[in-house]
Amino acid sequence: LATKVSDAVIRRLPRYFRQLCALDGEGVAKISSLELSRRMGITASQIRQDLSCFGGFGQQGYGYSVSFLRGRIEQILGIDRKYGVVIIGAGNIGQALAQYAQFSARGYEIAALFDVDEALVGNTFGGVEVLHIDSLESFLQHHPADIAVLAAPEGEALELAERLARAGIRAIWNFAPVDIVLEGVAVENAQLTDGLMALTYRLGELRRGGK
Amino acid sequence: LATKVSDAVIRRLPRYFRQLCALDGEGVAKISSLELSRRMGITASQIRQDLSCFGGFGQQGYGYSVSFLRGRIEQILGIDRKYGVVIIGAGNIGQALAQYAQFSARGYEIAALFDVDEALVGNTFGGVEVLHIDSLESFLQHHPADIAVLAAPEGEALELAERLARAGIRAIWNFAPVDIVLEGVAVENAQLTDGLMALTYRLGELRRGGK
Repeated sequence: LATKVSDAVIRRLPRYFRQLCALDGEGVAKISSLELSRRMGITASQIRQDLSCFGGFGQQGYGYSVSFLRGRIEQILGIDRKYGVVIIGAGNIGQALAQYAQFSARGYEIAALFDVDEALVGNTFGGVEVLHIDSLESFLQHHPADIAVLAAPEGEALELAERLARAGIRAIWNFAPVDIVLEGVAVENAQLTDGLMALTYRLGELRRGGK
Repeated sequence: LATKVSDAVIRRLPRYFRQLCALDGEGVAKISSLELSRRMGITASQIRQDLSCFGGFGQQGYGYSVSFLRGRIEQILGIDRKYGVVIIGAGNIGQALAQYAQFSARGYEIAALFDVDEALVGNTFGGVEVLHIDSLESFLQHHPADIAVLAAPEGEALELAERLARAGIRAIWNFAPVDIVLEGVAVENAQLTDGLMALTYRLGELRRGGK
């Protein structure tokens, strides 16, 4: 697993995971790459290629064992344990994320929201309290977190990211519309407008008949 | 442009676009792939390869013209025009998206929110009114939209997606934790937990020293 896996494959792994959870729930014990392909809209050869990156768990003429593959992908993604999360920025996006029940269901435990706005401090969203950003470092010292969600305004995002890195955060999920590049910190960009632009590109492709 | 461009490239185009807008704002007229590389955390050879997919606008020894490249990427992404958007589901995520100012700044005009919950109908979020889901088809007949944002619960998402497709929607931005595969409809998945899982994978990679 020390070899570098491409971004595109990493991005598809959660989709495989969700699909396998659904199959498990339906009582399906094994599945072929062809059937997975039909359900997911990914070609069967792409599926075989993706899963071979992690050792290839399929057997010729049998297909994949749903529960085994599900367990392996869970390990690979590292979601077989719990993660502590802090959310920086308690605006609309920060509030919505704090109230998103599926995070805690998947083992992501939101410890606190942080904001500079005194009017927000002390409020709770989804049971998570808003603390003042000045208390970030002392909070993290006593409640080490794995992941920071950055939902702060554009102008403050870079400085906050550097501050989080100095406080020991090694993973940032970035909703601010700026690129964050920090040595030794994993950054996943969740810029909302980027997703909408990618969709617009695909819509154009569809209208031009290219797909 | 009729050739198929890979998902990974499409996903990077909005990042190039944002970076070029920032450079334009700083008054930078031209930039080398090396300097873009430093600012974006993408290798220079990757940048040259990405941009060559669209004809390659760089000149040896000169670099890229910022305003020209920005304009071309704008055209390629199809964001040189306006798009009508409806949001299906007026819960926390739907509300936060309706209030996200950057969408309208980029030409995405949110026409209405839809929900089945009578208690939400009639409220406005970010100046956008919540209408009853029963009025979806008649609304779209009178206000054709390009894009639907699907922020509905998991159990209702697939049926709503099919309903949107029947009502003429050709692009769905899907926040529900189910895979949507519909013939002739562009779907961009924005499943929030997927992004967090991908980040967790990268964090593990970092901790194992693989990156």
